[in-house]
This record gives sequence, structure tokens and C-alpha cells, in this order.
Amino acid sequence: MAQRPRGTRDFLPDEMERRRHYEGVLRRRAETFGFREISTPIFEETELFVARSGPNIVEELYAFEDKGGRGISLRPELTAPAIRLYVNGMSNDPKPVKAFYFGQCFRYERPQSGRYREFFQFGAELIGGSGPESDAEVIALAAAMVRDLGLKNYKVRLGHIGVLRDRLASVGIPGDGMAEILQKLDKKAFDEARPILESRGVGDADIESIFGLVSTVGGPEVLSAVPGEIGEYMGRVLALLDAMGVGDVEVDLGVVRGLDYYTGIVFEMEAPALGAEKQICGGGSYALAEVFGGEPVFTTGFAIGFDRILLAMEKEGLEHPRKALRAYIVPVSDDVRVEAARIVASLRDAGISADIDLMDRKMGRALKHASSVGAEKAVIVGAKELSQGVATVRDMESGEQSEVPLDCLVDHFLS
Amino acid sequence: MAQRPRGTRDFLPDEMERRRHYEGVLRRRAETFGFREISTPIFEETELFVARSGPNIVEELYAFEDKGGRGISLRPELTAPAIRLYVNGMSNDPKPVKAFYFGQCFRYERPQSGRYREFFQFGAELIGGSGPESDAEVIALAAAMVRDLGLKNYKVRLGHIGVLRDRLASVGIPGDGMAEILQKLDKKAFDEARPILESRGVGDADIESIFGLVSTVGGPEVLSAVPGEIGEYMGRVLALLDAMGVGDVEVDLGVVRGLDYYTGIVFEMEAPALGAEKQICGGGSYALAEVFGGEPVFTTGFAIGFDRILLAMEKEGLEHPRKALRAYIVPVSDDVRVEAARIVASLRDAGISADIDLMDRKMGRALKHASSVGAEKAVIVGAKELSQGVATVRDMESGEQSEVPLDCLVDHFLS
Repeated sequence: MAQRPRGTRDFLPDEMERRRHYEGVLRRRAETFGFREISTPIFEETELFVARSGPNIVEELYAFEDKGGRGISLRPELTAPAIRLYVNGMSNDPKPVKAFYFGQCFRYERPQSGRYREFFQFGAELIGGSGPESDAEVIALAAAMVRDLGLKNYKVRLGHIGVLRDRLASVGIPGDGMAEILQKLDKKAFDEARPILESRGVGDADIESIFGLVSTVGGPEVLSAVPGEIGEYMGRVLALLDAMGVGDVEVDLGVVRGLDYYTGIVFEMEAPALGAEKQICGGGSYALAEVFGGEPVFTTGFAIGFDRILLAMEKEGLEHPRKALRAYIVPVSDDVRVEAARIVASLRDAGISADIDLMDRKMGRALKHASSVGAEKAVIVGAKELSQGVATVRDMESGEQSEVPLDCLVDHFLS
Repeated sequence: MAQRPRGTRDFLPDEMERRRHYEGVLRRRAETFGFREISTPIFEETELFVARSGPNIVEELYAFEDKGGRGISLRPELTAPAIRLYVNGMSNDPKPVKAFYFGQCFRYERPQSGRYREFFQFGAELIGGSGPESDAEVIALAAAMVRDLGLKNYKVRLGHIGVLRDRLASVGIPGDGMAEILQKLDKKAFDEARPILESRGVGDADIESIFGLVSTVGGPEVLSAVPGEIGEYMGRVLALLDAMGVGDVEVDLGVVRGLDYYTGIVFEMEAPALGAEKQICGGGSYALAEVFGGEPVFTTGFAIGFDRILLAMEKEGLEHPRKALRAYIVPVSDDVRVEAARIVASLRDAGISADIDLMDRKMGRALKHASSVGAEKAVIVGAKELSQGVATVRDMESGEQSEVPLDCLVDHFLS
């Protein structure tokens, strides 16, 4: 029997209705913030992802060659394509450009709980803004989205990549030697970071102070550990966020994010219920446009792991509103089928969702089917009733029946 | 500079808004018909598409091998995945299963006008129904969708694959010899069909009669050329369609469709404005579940070429309703930025789309930007006004300004 490829998923109607509902929640929230949707192809030149993430990314890509011998890959993330699109087609637009996107990404790895080879990301970029106002705008959007979804148990953590970079520079680590150390610090792998720092001649006291910085977590008061411009900047972001209703932000100077191109604030959101895979959103301000051949431009963005956040919501037992089928038409005999078709069409034309028995079911089984597809009401169309210009409408929950004139049927459902 | 792959497209905000609007129109129409959305992966095992379309399809596929050596292809169409999903996961659901889907498909061919390597299809399947009622239900949905989109100039053409099959059988063509001939007849390539028919010993008179059948086009009256069950069946479909408001169907006995697995009615919709690439929808009833290892089941479905139908609509000059940005907040000075952030958040929380100047623009330039992003009103936040508990609201069209108390601002936009 034909099977779907490993690590991918099919979505059946109930699940798909749930996903579309929450996608709509995210979309509407982004729109109220003045962000507008863009869309890029499912695959890009492999080069693009290597330029963003380094050559190791290739191992995780669905990469292939096209017939012209060009390296092509299914996109593993949406930030690089979005910035590529900005450089290609939006760089002359009035600033800031505020764009969001939603779609499939692909990662070639062993499938495991909450991680799929095909997965969905929702993301947003604010390009060409500047300063704490732009950063706060983007973080506020991410926080408002998660709040709108209805998730209760989550945290926003805010850091600044400059804190550790400045500190490492002050103990003599050159810019191009930082990436390796930052990656260890990002994972709080102090045992692995220590020998590297020692080999660079950093003394014990400085090492402990660096580890202390990485472990600094708390309210706005911990910004006292960050004197100067960066501390002021972060304080300003926190004040703006507070004004926008995002008051519960944790300052975490250990938020580093894995990638080189972050330049300023970095933030993450997590849902503790998810355990080891608890991160549901990650972002920050970064310089990527110039990597793709564009002019340098201040950019802040984030990506939300749509599948993972849905999983967190499932663990909290969140229910979405279901779309009900309003009417189920039951033609009692074969000679009324054409009239029944006319009736179902009149309801549908008025925007009322209506289904009709297509299986020649007898009354009892037809009503049972109407129930199983969740119809609110059955409209029973019989020859005798038709001749009197009426149909019988049955409330599927109460079982109550009444005769409704055919020319009032649409109104019956609209009122 | 990084480029997008050949034959693919980026969608900028205006175009994306248009596409999402019309996608929503199709989606809502499918839902009023009681169809529910399903979704399948972007790629499938190559086998699946070969089983549906024959080995020649491989040349047109973005095909690659995964690390396990399995042949994988980006989907070139959505019918095979939908039926694969039905066989895998929905075959025990109450019948009929009514499913729709929308998404990207991929075809490795030379890019040309209206044809892309990445393109979008909207489709629907009614699985496990039976008879003319089910066929009419599906055709009525396709027609209602195109009508809802607002396209004016289009045609629905209805045929039945049995007409030609029966006729060919009657002149001695065996079932497995029909495909080649049907393909020629589908393209009205009579010059190429004639020698094949002659080589099978079909006489001139029969050949002319077959060509005549293929060329039979008209209203319900041409069904007189189709005596017996098939003619009756088609008449019934036409009567049901008429009752459902789809009265302008052309009977066209030359509609054959390219593929072997069609079993009964076949239909096409076309937008003549598109010239040679005028087909915007194709469908019919077919037997595909058993090809994928499932039980045989009556199925009728169709696919709409979303890009092509949008192109037809563009040619007719159709405009979609634009989403307006309701408010653009202009902080007059730096010291009111936190209060301005509070104000923009209060509007957004009430579902009102609101943007805020992030560029420290001076008043004149900020208002110009508000205009260029299409804001309905500007909300000017100054220190003096704030101290009086008001903001200045400017209608961007009329230029009229008025002071609105801050605690009435949300109501001002909602009323």
C-alpha cells in the first residue's frame, strides 16, 4: 500500500480545522500590528542556506541538483528566504518593511517527538527600523501572538548578544574566536567552554565572571550587571514592552542564540510543559541582508515553531471553536432529488453550510449520518410536503421537528 | 546577489493579500458544500505519481533520493496524495468522504507564461458517493467556486468517458488498445488517430462517426447522440446541475481527459481569455484508490489551477477588497514614545490594525508615510495633548483633525 514518506504528516479534517484556526489567529494578530504577508518558494538555491548557517547545514538539508546542475534545497527555515526576498524585491520600499510569513520547512533528521522532517514555521521581520522601539515592536508581536493562541504557561526571555561579546573582547578574545565559545555558553556547557577560555589565556576570575554573566537571570533589576549603553538599551526595550502589555519578561543574559549574524537583542519564548524541546519562539536583531548582497539594514525578527506551540496548547487542553455544519438535507424518495438539490443550493448560496444525502439512505440512517457529521439541523424533503410548499426541519440535538415554508428556509437558518 | 530558483515566484504583500483573499473565497465555498480540508506532505514517494500517471511522469518531476535510497518527488499534483491519504487514513470514515485541499505543486519544465515550476492547485474529492447526485455535487462546487471568484467569462463542458469507450469497443478496439487512441482524440488530433484506427481495421464510415462523436458539442439536446444508460445518466447530471443553479453547461462528448483511470463523467472549465492555456479546472469520476492498494470506491473530483484562474481574473480587471490599516500612531517627540506604545497596544488589543512610526520621522514625513501605507487615520501623540488626556486624530483622506480623549480612542475606531 502506498505510504507517506517517513517523518512527514497527513492532516485529517479535524486536525486541519484546528491548524487553520490557529494559523488565522496568528495571521490576524500580525495584521493588527501592521505586518503584511509575503511568500517565497518551497526550495531555494542551497547556497542561500549555507550563507546563513554555514556549510554544516548541508547535512540536514533535503538537497538535490536540478537538471541544470544547480544545487537546490527544500528550505530548512524561512528567515533566509524572507531576507533574500527583501534584498531582491523590497529594499526600495518605505521603511520599515514589516513582513510575516507562514509555511512548511524541511529538515533531514531522525524523526522524534515534536520534531518532524516537514514542519511549519510562522515568522515576522521588521526591516529597516532602528533602535529599541523596533525591537520592542517585534517582541510585542511575538508575545501577543502566543497570548492570542490561549497558551497559559510560557516565558519570554530577553538577552543581548553584545553583553557577552563585549565581555569576551575585554578579556582579549578576538571577534573571529568568539563563535566557538558563544556556542558553548549558549548551551551552558561550561565544562567545554572553560578549557577553550583557558587556552586563550583567560584567568580563573574572568572565567567565573563570564559564567556568572551567562547565568544572570531575573527582572529588570539584573540590568545593573550591564552598565553602559547596552544596559540602557535593554531597559528601554523592557519599558516599551511593559507599556504594550508585555510585562512578564525575564532578563536572561545567557540567551545567546546559535548563529553569528545576531547583532543586538536576542529573545526566546518557551513553554515549560514541552520539556527538553520547550522553545517555541526565537528571535533577535541581526545583519543578514548584506550576507545576501544587499545593503546593511537594521533587522529584527523571530520564528515561531507552529507544530511545537500546538503541542504545548494540546498539553494545556486548549480547545478551538468548531465549525458546525448547519443543515443536512434528506430527500425522502428518489422523485424529490432534483427539488432537494434546489433547496441545498439555495442554502449554500446564502452562505449556509449544507450537506445532502448522496447515498440513498433511508430516513433513520440518514438522520444518524447527519448526527455523525455534526449537522445542527436536518431538512427532510418529502413529496407530500413539497406539494404543500414546505419541508420538515429537525433540530438534531432536541429532536424537535417543525414544518418550514420553502421560501422561508434560508431565513430560518439566518435568523 | 542571492536569486530565487528559476520558474518559481516570490509573492509581495499586495499580491499575497490578493491570493489569500481568493483562497478564502474558495475555502468558504467548499465548506458551505460540506467539504472539509485535508493536507498532505510537499513530497511523496515517486512510486505514487508513477502509479497514477505512468512512468513518463518521472521526467517532469523534481525527483531525488533520500538518504535511505528511496525515490522521493515533490508532488506534481494533489489528487494522488489525497487518494493515498484516503486509503491510509480515511477509508473507514462514513461515506461519502468530502475533502478539499490547497497547496503548491511542482513541475520540472521550461517556465512559460502562466506555467510555473511551482504552482498552486485547489482541489476537491467526493469519495464513496455514487451516481449522478455525487457527480453533480462536485461539478456544482467547482462552478460555484469560479462564480464566487467573480470570473465572468468561462464555460463548463461536460462529457462522459464511456461514450467513446463504448463506441471504440463496438468497432472492435480492445480495452488495452484504447489509451493511445483516446489521447489523440482528446487533442482532436484526427490526422494522428486515423492511421491508428485504420491499422486496427476500422472502416471509414466508423472512423467518421467516431470523429463526429468527438466533435459533438451543444446543449442537453445533443444527448440524443448518446442513447442508453450513459445518455440518461448525463441527462440526470444536467438536471441536477440546473436545479443547483448551474444551467449553462455545454455537453461536449470530446472531453476525454488524458488519464486512464477516469471511469465516468469528465468535465472541464475554461476561461477563453487565456488563449491556448485556457483550461482552469478539470475533473471527473475515476478509480484511483485501488491503484494505491485500497478498496475500489466511487470517486469524483476536480482540480482548479489557482494561478491560471487568477490570471484570467486579472485579465477581466477584477479587484479584491483591500485590507486597510486603520491607524498610524505618530509620536511627536521622544519623551512620549512609551505612552505612544501604550496607545498603539490598546488599539491592537481591540483588533484594530495600527502601526506606529519607528523612524523618528518629523510630523510632515510621518504623515506622508502614513499615507503611503494606506492608513485611514493618523493618531498624533504630543506631550501637551497627553497631559490633557487626549490625542489628535487626523482623517488621512479629508485632512480633518479632532481631539479624542485617550480612553475613547478604541471606541472612536470601533464606531
